[in-house]
Parts: sequence; structure tokens; C-alpha cells
Amino acid sequence: MNELDLVERIRKMAGRTPGLAPGGIQLGIGDDCAIYRPRSGEELLFTTDQFMEGVHFRPGTSASAIGQRALARSLSDIAAMGGEPRFCLVSLAVSARETEAWILGFYRGLIGLARKTGTVLAGGDLARAPEAQDKIHVDVMVCGATPQGRALRRDGARPGDSLWVSGRLGKPWDRGIRPRLDLAVELRGRASACIDISDGLALDLHRLCVASGVAAELERVPIARGSTLDRALHGGDDYELLFALPAKARGPRGSVCIGRTVRGRAGTLSLNGQPLEPRGYDHFAPITLESRARSRSRLPDPGR
Amino acid sequence: MNELDLVERIRKMAGRTPGLAPGGIQLGIGDDCAIYRPRSGEELLFTTDQFMEGVHFRPGTSASAIGQRALARSLSDIAAMGGEPRFCLVSLAVSARETEAWILGFYRGLIGLARKTGTVLAGGDLARAPEAQDKIHVDVMVCGATPQGRALRRDGARPGDSLWVSGRLGKPWDRGIRPRLDLAVELRGRASACIDISDGLALDLHRLCVASGVAAELERVPIARGSTLDRALHGGDDYELLFALPAKARGPRGSVCIGRTVRGRAGTLSLNGQPLEPRGYDHFAPITLESRARSRSRLPDPGR
Repeated sequence: MNELDLVERIRKMAGRTPGLAPGGIQLGIGDDCAIYRPRSGEELLFTTDQFMEGVHFRPGTSASAIGQRALARSLSDIAAMGGEPRFCLVSLAVSARETEAWILGFYRGLIGLARKTGTVLAGGDLARAPEAQDKIHVDVMVCGATPQGRALRRDGARPGDSLWVSGRLGKPWDRGIRPRLDLAVELRGRASACIDISDGLALDLHRLCVASGVAAELERVPIARGSTLDRALHGGDDYELLFALPAKARGPRGSVCIGRTVRGRAGTLSLNGQPLEPRGYDHFAPITLESRARSRSRLPDPGR
Repeated sequence: MNELDLVERIRKMAGRTPGLAPGGIQLGIGDDCAIYRPRSGEELLFTTDQFMEGVHFRPGTSASAIGQRALARSLSDIAAMGGEPRFCLVSLAVSARETEAWILGFYRGLIGLARKTGTVLAGGDLARAPEAQDKIHVDVMVCGATPQGRALRRDGARPGDSLWVSGRLGKPWDRGIRPRLDLAVELRGRASACIDISDGLALDLHRLCVASGVAAELERVPIARGSTLDRALHGGDDYELLFALPAKARGPRGSVCIGRTVRGRAGTLSLNGQPLEPRGYDHFAPITLESRARSRSRLPDPGR
């Protein structure tokens, strides 16, 4: 199978593009670019996330799980901004060892989630690295939309806001990622700031606080069954939403108030009065044996 | 330097985003998503291209050349659709051996071309693979724009159109890539079909003909000084535009008429009456020793 045949198979799996609808994707897979016609009054959100063998997933993870997760991570960023997904572009680089069946399995997993969430697979790029030991590399760009001026940003929290998370934290990696698109629309116009927890509560809360120019005091952290406080704070990969609401507002059903924002040095965190280090997953921490060990420990482990 | 510091440095290099202009990027690097406000009457074009060490460039290529070329490839796709670039998202994965200076050099090269072409660096993703032998991987998504319904597609050529290329083909790889954005606007409303030559004239012409349902007869191929016909036909990496015009129309200054489209089996090519094989660079040809050797031979070689 050559590239043209493979792209044709993927195009068929992706399904027909809506054609000349009032807005949306006008031209999908198969040309130099996809064409998107914006709908009246909408503002577009763009995010891209890499998903790499040996960094974000272990060798041997199933093709369809890789496809599903790679898309889910980017959809989580769309949810964090209060958006509804419109379409995605998918770049996939495989090594000499992945078969065509593997590649089609990858797209099956990705397209399954795309369909459920109303995301059109509109294009991308396929490449093969020459050696069997080269690593699988995925990069998924998602475009989402909100009404103009209604996107949730991470820089809008004010001192005295309450802080919430959308669910329990520290869940095991091998649970499928469920991007919280259900909450995105509900939080629009209510949350003063929002971010998704992809690198651990502590680090992502730190980022939200730095952007908003506030400090944070945490009082409780909802821990997933069988997990630990450390994993809930610093584990990453939860893909729940962390958001700030005005002091007296109530969070959506299932969300948990974890503390509040306060005046103070931007980004300073405490938990029950003790300083909390904004430690989490940082791809650019200095490369040392310790950080490399930490990097490895983040890989999904059947025993974890 | 950790990820937050590095992102802050890159954000400063990218420059201020235009803020609340009537349209365009409203929020750039630093949140979960970039925010783009479409301008009235515009249609958006999206493309993404991978640029991989060991596939598209040799180890040791300078960081700024990698950044420049990675963006140029995607800009060439925008030109092929008749678009003007608006913004880009850049995913970069480095190995344990690339320094922060290397990463900043990469962004310097990329941002230099972005500025020249009016492309805002609006976001992306940075990751580090754990091993020194892991390979550099770049993926650049570019969004461009055209007036509604005016994008150049590859499927609009009709039998009897004349075929043109925007310049000589088979140029050495180490020449910088100059995406033909200058021609894009000029060809809008004139060309019946357009594609950029990224995988060789023969293969990209074949793609245009398959999409348009026509065959093609070539009469001449403009060869770059010091190059060969074989390299001009099958070499790839030219990033000139290949386009079809109505029979009597004249091409833009500097472009060369190479033949015409005819009725026939879609995608069939001939050169001066002899069948021409649609051979070029195909990332998904079956992996054999021969194709791997071909893959290698495409790498830039100082002696080439």
C-alpha cells in the first residue's frame, strides 16, 4: 500500500465532510490544505499536543489507544477554554516496524473519539522514519469554537475566588482519557479562569495563578480511589478541569471546591497552611538522572 | 531553565500579539489554546507538515535552518491554495542532547521567516525525549486565509488546460526554501488547479491529475542550473507551484508552460510522448532496502 492508497483508506474512515454547509469544514483530507468556513459570531480556539512513545506512552500500547489518547489530550485543552471541538489535523510518524494494519488501527481509535465529540478529521501528515528503533510520534491539532469573547482563559482569576476541580485526581494512567467537554459550555460566562490538569494539580494551579497574578490556598484535594495525595497533586494526566468561580458561586454537579485564590506572590501555593511546591511534569526540567527517572516513572505501568 | 522560563523566552521572541484588532490572533502563546477571531468574508486554510531528523534533514543541520525550513514547508501548502498566512502552531520534540541555546536558535530561524511572511507564532508544544539518540521532530501547522470560495484546489483542472510551474526544478536541497506566497494571490481566480511541488514534479502532477480526473502530456521541464532531468522530475523538495490555466491564458512572469492536461485515464503522465512514471518521494512505499536507500538519498548532502 502506498501513501495515496493509505490516505484514501483513512479518508473513507473519516467519513464524508459536510460539504457546503453554512459553515464548518468545506474540504477535508486530500488537498494541500483543509478549508474551514467560520460561522457567524464564532471565535476559534487552536491547540496542539504531542504524544510520544517513550515519553507519554510505553512501547507496545495498542494503536487504537494511542489514537484515542492523542486526540483526547488536545480535546481537553479545548474543554479548558470553554470550547466545542470543530475539527482536527493529525500528524503521525511511525517507524519501519509499524504495519498498515497498525496505522489503520491508530486512525480507528482516533476517529471513534472524533465522532463522539463532533470533531471532523480534516487532514494531517503521515511519515515513516527509516529505522525499526525510531519512535512513534503523534501530534494532534484541534480547532474548537466559542461565541466571540466568551473563551475561558487562565488569566482571569481574582483574589477571593473559589477554586474547583471537576473530579477526583490521581487516577491510574490506563483509564481512558475523558476530556471534560460536557463542562466546557456550562462554565462559559461563569468561571473567571480555567485550565485542564495535564501536568499535575500543583503545577497547573501554579500556572493559572501566575497568569492571573494571585496566590492559592488549598484545603482539600479529592483523591481517586486507590490513589495517593502525592499522585493527586503531582501525577498529571488527569485531564479534569481546574477552575475559579466568584466566591459564593456553586460549581457544576460533581465538581469539588478545593480552596481559594488570595492576594500574594503570583503562583505561591499552600495546602492546609503548608507551602506546596509547584512540582509536576515538566518536559524542560534540566535533564538529570533524577529527572529522567521521573520521566520514566510517568509511563503507564500495568502495576500502577 | 524550566519549561515556563523557556516558553516565556519564546513568547518574547514571537513578539506582541496584535491584541483586540478587528480580527486575527486575540491570544497567543501562554494559555491552553490560541484564540483567533475570523475576519469578515474570509475562509481559513489549514495544513500541517512534519520535519524529521533522518528523514527530511541530516543530523547536524543548524537549529535555525531547521526552524526556517519547517515553517517554509507548511507556508508552501498555503501558497498552493492561494492563501495568505495568518498564524502557526509549532510542535518541537528534542532529544536529551539539544541545549536551550539550540531550542532558541530553532525559534529564531522560524520566527525570522514568520515575520517576513506575516505569520504570527501563536502557540505549540515543546517536549524532550529522554535519550540522546532520540531524533528531533518538528510539526508545523499553519493557518492561512482566502476570500470565501476563492481557494485554489488540486481538483479543478479540465482537459485542455495548460500546465505551468513557477520556476526551475531540481534545485539543490541546501538552498533555502522560498514558499511562493508571492504567486498565491496572483493565481487566485485564474488557475483552475494548483499544488506545490514537495515530492517531485511527476508525483505531484500525478496527484493533481488524479484529483481532477485528467491525464497530462508534458513537453518541457525547466531544469535548475547544474541539476538533471531525473532530479527535476523526481527529486522533490522544490517548493515551486504547479498549476493549470485555461488554454490561452498566460502564466505569471517567471513561470514556464510545461504541457497540458488531456482526456485519459486519471493521473496518466507522458513526457514528449513517452510514459512518465509518477515516481517521487512517498513516505509509505513498502519499506525495502531499496526504498530505505532512496529515503536516505533524499537527505541533504553537502556534495550534492
